[in-house]
Amino acid sequence: MVKRVQKLVYSFGSKGGEGDASMKQLLGGKGANLAEMVNIKIPVPPGFTITTEVCGIYFEAGDKLPGGLDAQVGKALNKIASETGKRFGDPKNPLLVSVRSGAPASMPGMMDTILNLGINDEVAANLAARSGNERFVYDSYRRFIMMYADVVLGVHRHAFEALMEKSKARLKVSQDHELPVAELKKIVAGSKKIIAAAKKKFPEDPMDQLWGAVSAVFGSWNNQRAVTYRALNNIPADWGTAVNVQAMVFGNMGNDCGTGVAFTRDPATGENVFFGEWLQNAQGEDVVAGIRTPHLLDARAAGAQSLERVFPGSYTQLLKIMKKLERHYRDMQDLEFTIENGRLWLLQTRTGKRTGFAAVRMAADMVSERLIKAPEALLRIEPDHLNHLLRPVFDPKSKKSVRVLEKGLPAGPGAATGRIALSAHKAVEMSSAGPVILVRHETSPEDIAGMDAADGILTSRGGMTSHAALVARQMGKVCVAGCDGVVVDYKKATATAGGKVFREGDFMSLDGGTGEVLDGRIATIPSEVVRVLIDKKLKAEKSPVYQTYAKVMSFADRYRDLGIRTNADQPDQASAAVAFGAEGIGLCRTEHMFFGEGKIGPMREMILADDLKTRQKALDKLLPLQRKDFAGIFKAMNGRPVTIRTLDPPLHEFLPQQAADINKLARSMGVSADKIKAKIRDLHEFNPMLGHRGCRLGISFPEVTRMQARAIFEAAIQVKKKGIAVRPEIMIPLVGSVTELKIQEAIVRDTAAAVFKARGMKLKYLVGTMIELPRAALTADRIAESAEFFSYGTNDLTQTALGMSRDDSGSFLPKYKDLGIYPQSPFEAIDRDGVGELVRIGVEKGRATRPKLKIGICGEHGGEPSSIEFFHQTGLDYVSCSPFRVPIARLAAAQAALRYPRSRG
Amino acid sequence: MVKRVQKLVYSFGSKGGEGDASMKQLLGGKGANLAEMVNIKIPVPPGFTITTEVCGIYFEAGDKLPGGLDAQVGKALNKIASETGKRFGDPKNPLLVSVRSGAPASMPGMMDTILNLGINDEVAANLAARSGNERFVYDSYRRFIMMYADVVLGVHRHAFEALMEKSKARLKVSQDHELPVAELKKIVAGSKKIIAAAKKKFPEDPMDQLWGAVSAVFGSWNNQRAVTYRALNNIPADWGTAVNVQAMVFGNMGNDCGTGVAFTRDPATGENVFFGEWLQNAQGEDVVAGIRTPHLLDARAAGAQSLERVFPGSYTQLLKIMKKLERHYRDMQDLEFTIENGRLWLLQTRTGKRTGFAAVRMAADMVSERLIKAPEALLRIEPDHLNHLLRPVFDPKSKKSVRVLEKGLPAGPGAATGRIALSAHKAVEMSSAGPVILVRHETSPEDIAGMDAADGILTSRGGMTSHAALVARQMGKVCVAGCDGVVVDYKKATATAGGKVFREGDFMSLDGGTGEVLDGRIATIPSEVVRVLIDKKLKAEKSPVYQTYAKVMSFADRYRDLGIRTNADQPDQASAAVAFGAEGIGLCRTEHMFFGEGKIGPMREMILADDLKTRQKALDKLLPLQRKDFAGIFKAMNGRPVTIRTLDPPLHEFLPQQAADINKLARSMGVSADKIKAKIRDLHEFNPMLGHRGCRLGISFPEVTRMQARAIFEAAIQVKKKGIAVRPEIMIPLVGSVTELKIQEAIVRDTAAAVFKARGMKLKYLVGTMIELPRAALTADRIAESAEFFSYGTNDLTQTALGMSRDDSGSFLPKYKDLGIYPQSPFEAIDRDGVGELVRIGVEKGRATRPKLKIGICGEHGGEPSSIEFFHQTGLDYVSCSPFRVPIARLAAAQAALRYPRSRG
Repeated sequence: MVKRVQKLVYSFGSKGGEGDASMKQLLGGKGANLAEMVNIKIPVPPGFTITTEVCGIYFEAGDKLPGGLDAQVGKALNKIASETGKRFGDPKNPLLVSVRSGAPASMPGMMDTILNLGINDEVAANLAARSGNERFVYDSYRRFIMMYADVVLGVHRHAFEALMEKSKARLKVSQDHELPVAELKKIVAGSKKIIAAAKKKFPEDPMDQLWGAVSAVFGSWNNQRAVTYRALNNIPADWGTAVNVQAMVFGNMGNDCGTGVAFTRDPATGENVFFGEWLQNAQGEDVVAGIRTPHLLDARAAGAQSLERVFPGSYTQLLKIMKKLERHYRDMQDLEFTIENGRLWLLQTRTGKRTGFAAVRMAADMVSERLIKAPEALLRIEPDHLNHLLRPVFDPKSKKSVRVLEKGLPAGPGAATGRIALSAHKAVEMSSAGPVILVRHETSPEDIAGMDAADGILTSRGGMTSHAALVARQMGKVCVAGCDGVVVDYKKATATAGGKVFREGDFMSLDGGTGEVLDGRIATIPSEVVRVLIDKKLKAEKSPVYQTYAKVMSFADRYRDLGIRTNADQPDQASAAVAFGAEGIGLCRTEHMFFGEGKIGPMREMILADDLKTRQKALDKLLPLQRKDFAGIFKAMNGRPVTIRTLDPPLHEFLPQQAADINKLARSMGVSADKIKAKIRDLHEFNPMLGHRGCRLGISFPEVTRMQARAIFEAAIQVKKKGIAVRPEIMIPLVGSVTELKIQEAIVRDTAAAVFKARGMKLKYLVGTMIELPRAALTADRIAESAEFFSYGTNDLTQTALGMSRDDSGSFLPKYKDLGIYPQSPFEAIDRDGVGELVRIGVEKGRATRPKLKIGICGEHGGEPSSIEFFHQTGLDYVSCSPFRVPIARLAAAQAALRYPRSRG
Repeated sequence: MVKRVQKLVYSFGSKGGEGDASMKQLLGGKGANLAEMVNIKIPVPPGFTITTEVCGIYFEAGDKLPGGLDAQVGKALNKIASETGKRFGDPKNPLLVSVRSGAPASMPGMMDTILNLGINDEVAANLAARSGNERFVYDSYRRFIMMYADVVLGVHRHAFEALMEKSKARLKVSQDHELPVAELKKIVAGSKKIIAAAKKKFPEDPMDQLWGAVSAVFGSWNNQRAVTYRALNNIPADWGTAVNVQAMVFGNMGNDCGTGVAFTRDPATGENVFFGEWLQNAQGEDVVAGIRTPHLLDARAAGAQSLERVFPGSYTQLLKIMKKLERHYRDMQDLEFTIENGRLWLLQTRTGKRTGFAAVRMAADMVSERLIKAPEALLRIEPDHLNHLLRPVFDPKSKKSVRVLEKGLPAGPGAATGRIALSAHKAVEMSSAGPVILVRHETSPEDIAGMDAADGILTSRGGMTSHAALVARQMGKVCVAGCDGVVVDYKKATATAGGKVFREGDFMSLDGGTGEVLDGRIATIPSEVVRVLIDKKLKAEKSPVYQTYAKVMSFADRYRDLGIRTNADQPDQASAAVAFGAEGIGLCRTEHMFFGEGKIGPMREMILADDLKTRQKALDKLLPLQRKDFAGIFKAMNGRPVTIRTLDPPLHEFLPQQAADINKLARSMGVSADKIKAKIRDLHEFNPMLGHRGCRLGISFPEVTRMQARAIFEAAIQVKKKGIAVRPEIMIPLVGSVTELKIQEAIVRDTAAAVFKARGMKLKYLVGTMIELPRAALTADRIAESAEFFSYGTNDLTQTALGMSRDDSGSFLPKYKDLGIYPQSPFEAIDRDGVGELVRIGVEKGRATRPKLKIGICGEHGGEPSSIEFFHQTGLDYVSCSPFRVPIARLAAAQAALRYPRSRG
């Protein structure tokens, strides 16, 4: 029998690599890329990769390296020697190496790098003699000992740093590089004593150093930070890490040396021009740490200090390499290079990070350049990156001039600046004079008018899905939520932030992208996309930004399966959503309409009515107002489907809370304030979320459903008579039992028939339901007997399935996220195991009864990319989200379809 | 080919019946029983039954009777003729019949009876001549026309009643029977005119009358009331009804006639003595309607007016028949009889209704008499009937003397009388001087001490499962809840009921079985069962009631599969539950313990602590107090398993609400009242049901779980060292994700190990979880990785699955019940389709991971019979309920096992 020897080590060098970029699982990301670079003839210092399989063997054997590894490593070191002419452990002509971890997926929790490994007293002395740069050698030696002690031997770096500080103090110098060579030699000796005192042994033998470092890399795979990171990012523990060992090259050995970083395109704007910085006679960390100011690469910008002037050959070579790498990897690259004695070496290449703006632009450009195809372009853009193209932004110059006061949650992206108002009423009043920032503890439906009037909303309480955040995003308003550093005092009419007391009328600014609250006024500019699509003040052909946006959107629409609708209550919201690509309204909340001018009065009369007659009188007043609202929406949607939800929130939300407002209402209604107060008390609920709301209102007061249905159908006929197609879909909320739905459906259909008869015209419509209670999902087969469509209300479904109030979860959810109980807030990304299971059950049972049942989702998750992916996988027909999320949803839907193709019937 | 003629008609008469009691599906309950009676030679007027199949044919054919029916009916009428010597439709010797509906299941919504059918002008005249009782004949004729018009022709009886009233007014008489014969004849003629005026035709031909009546019976199967009743009681629409046609016999044709009703045993006490009433020369309805006072049957009680004296032969015959019927049907019978011209006829027999007390006694007695076997006895008792044997009752004489003030919900059965107190504090204070009735708007955990001190609890708000009702039942207290006629004014310290103002200290009484609130003092007596089992003041052998109870319980234990545990927080509750047969504690709520004397202080310090150190200090004070509580419970349960739930309710429930209490707390803690108020504000939640509670507290404050675990294990070791076995089961509440459970489990197991080590002794214990959130049920496979047992918290599971707050559902649930959306409150009987589906999913997934997983339920449904049936069917191991529900649960579990036998492995 021949024993097959397992290959544990993969070399790379000028003759090519034993691996390639496709072998990330075995060689880790770093190792695979190094092999790939040598394969395409990029100059890379030679080295080798110990595979991730060795990591697995190491742990299985109880932290022991496998037999046979030393032989394979020895051979690989010989290959480096034959290429560099230097030999590892040979004091006469020593080779130093770097040792780095490199897992299949990027893992910030692990050991990163040990440099200069292979040095000892003898090697150092010879190296100093050969290089003629004694200072450099002993500084490298000192650093290596400290790094090795810290990472491999577990002796904390504090003691070594203290030793340095003592030397500097004694010699009265302030900078490390001011220490003379003699002192550095003493520090090397002192460092070894620290290690000995800690009962550890610093290995003088370079081979022992190497094995220690390799074991340390493997060990770091299971340190606490790495374990937590893996748990949070779903990286399997058995993947393991690889170890990369590579010949050192030095950019700091003299003036014929240098080092730098470069991006193949501008990572901020996405423009197709390279960008990079470098330093002569320096190490990589000098560029990154900002101790010395680096210079730009090209001569036009940096003149005599440019790489182009100092090392024109290397410069030309670097440009060629950048082009080659980008063409090879088909994406923008972020690379590190070093010039050692006039020779250019590439140390790393990886896909470069970029702003959202740049991501979108690069993706679009690369399709035009035929570098990539549309599907790949789509998959490269984080859907939320589209926000950068849509939101108004601060004029950067103006923003620099003001102070950041506090930081809250970036709940509604964009930039807003204006005078602060501390009540909705005041916000409305002040808005005629200029932009307003509404500042509240929190907001409630009563504040809708004020939120509508404001440019930005700042709350001291509530989370990313608080009322303020929800409505702000729906309205496309800038919002910073839950900023507990801001203290609002309604009595004194002040808001204190960053130690400064603001009165109503003082200027404040909000950056909804960062959550910053800023002092005073900052100029903003609307995004080009909005200026083209919504304001129509900019012509499409004059805006390259818009062109980019439109190109990406057209790609997205080509690949997605999900329909995209919008949640909109007003004609202007509806029009904006259509401009952003919405194909219908998935949720029109009728309750917001009741807060409009002239409507809240009759609404309150309706609620306070003691008998049917009085209630009907109030409803008769509301009917024409609702009809007008619906007609406006139908016109704006111009034939697209419009899903209208009947009255949903608990009635107490419509009643006034302040004594003055109660008295005013009492006077206008001709009843006593006590009566109104008693009614408010009556309507109080312990858990309003689980109380008298949704279709329970329509069951208790069928006349309300009847009025709403009548307003819908009368408006629909009115608009249809003008020659505009209308497709109303009436949606009954909070259904738990099919009987509730059937009772409400009967009212809607009876009303429709009566209106059609009276107006002498018919139209098609649907009656369906929200699925927002676990019971509805569990009995979806029964509910589908009556429902023509389902729309998941995942906000309430999350609250009920998890037994977790959105508004109250702030007291424990942060800790839950820290502990990994819910890695993301379930109110942001859908909880697939729990809420998602209910979605799946509902889809399966609903379609068992009615195979072509139309199913959508109109909760906040409808605009969140990972949730959209889940809804695509679950077989939904559409998602509905706030108007400004529509482009994001289109992109996310396309990505989902590309990642998880649906089988075509 | 021979066409097989379907048998549509089944005759019964002195020669026997063509059917029997087993044929209820075909002949209906009434028809089957009539046939059965003739089969066992009971004298029954002859007749026939048209089958339920004809009903189906009738509807299928579009409301048409099938061909061939007339021939079969004709033959059956001939059989009656040959037996009675009278012929239907023959004016010279006419036969009159009754026509009644009779479905397989009793259906109150349907047509009941038409009497005297077959009469017309000619028949009436002949009958009058033959009987010599013209008045009787024309009164019967008048009644028949009205009944027929109303039921068959659809002419409302109002018009006929008006006609009668006119006659009486004109003749100045007040009673129907005072009208002379001539006037009755006029009314007959006038009634026919009313029918003609309504454009209907009264059929003079008896045969036409019969077909009309038969069609009307079938038609009544689909009237609205019947359809609704079927829907509510799950009776299939295709069952149909039968029609019974029977020769009339008359108890009111002279003094040799009479009529009566009888029960074969006493329906009130269950004693094995017959009970009956009768009237000479009277119709059945005279006995029932109470126009004349009926007489008892036996001579000892009724002397000369007894049936025994007046018709001694019939009396002896009736006694024999009663014995025969009871022996035949093996149950107490309720029968109707008529004596016509000295001859006894039985018109009906059916199983008699009885009080709970009687039901239990009869079932037990009949087993002793070998009339039935134990399983049948068990199935005959409504589990809730056992309450009649357990609760203290008012002395009936004393109750009669006081006024009923108001009526609320009978939330906690029993009788309580005492002085009213309007606060928990006052109740405790007053209780030393005598029994107290605690009267509140509603109760909260803060009131526990007061509820414990009170004998009865009266609330003006809340339902059958409100806090007051829940805790009252748990404690075995009398409770009338949600009595909105009672107005409580805390400021004035008064409660107004029935127009009378009560001050603290005034006497009031509550009947928890009826919901009555009574004025003043009423004497109560404890039940014999309680005096034997709990008070131990009565010897078992001296109480026949206890003997009955014990016999039934021993039967139940023989057949049930479900274990029965109890929800108990105090040693005395635990002991009572064990006396009632509890086999363990299924839910020990630790929070109630914190309200005890000396505990609420440290608890509040714990909650108000700003840092871990202060919190730990407060926990250190609580530890010995909790340990003492647990030791008491372990001792009381003497080796039975004890499931202890860690802290569950939101913390704000423990903080004081009144300014005085806040100030007191502030002084005792040495902090400002403002600080406490601020903390109370901080802890306020919009939806506390969905807020920071359950294991979320233990996650936020692991030191609380650690203290509780330590108290449990230290107590357990302490008790075990005394030689008493201890089986603690630690239960983590409100788990939604297995990670939460794992985090809490680790704390419990670490603490256990530390305690065992410190005390030098180990014991076995389990760690499990409540399943009370939909997400927990849906991810039960994951949760069972950690949980050693599940206990369904169906209260919260109902609230979350249905999105319905128990405390807020009062505003809409009554209407929901009326509309049949939820036929019963889902907080009383488990909602099988929704919540039940989650229970099923949880059981299936849980046991998929851990096949022997122990699963119980500790929600309020654990004591409700129909829910217990469901839990048996779902394969649960045990139910846990309040101590006083334990006997009921034992019986319900036995019934479930008898109805749905589990397959034995």
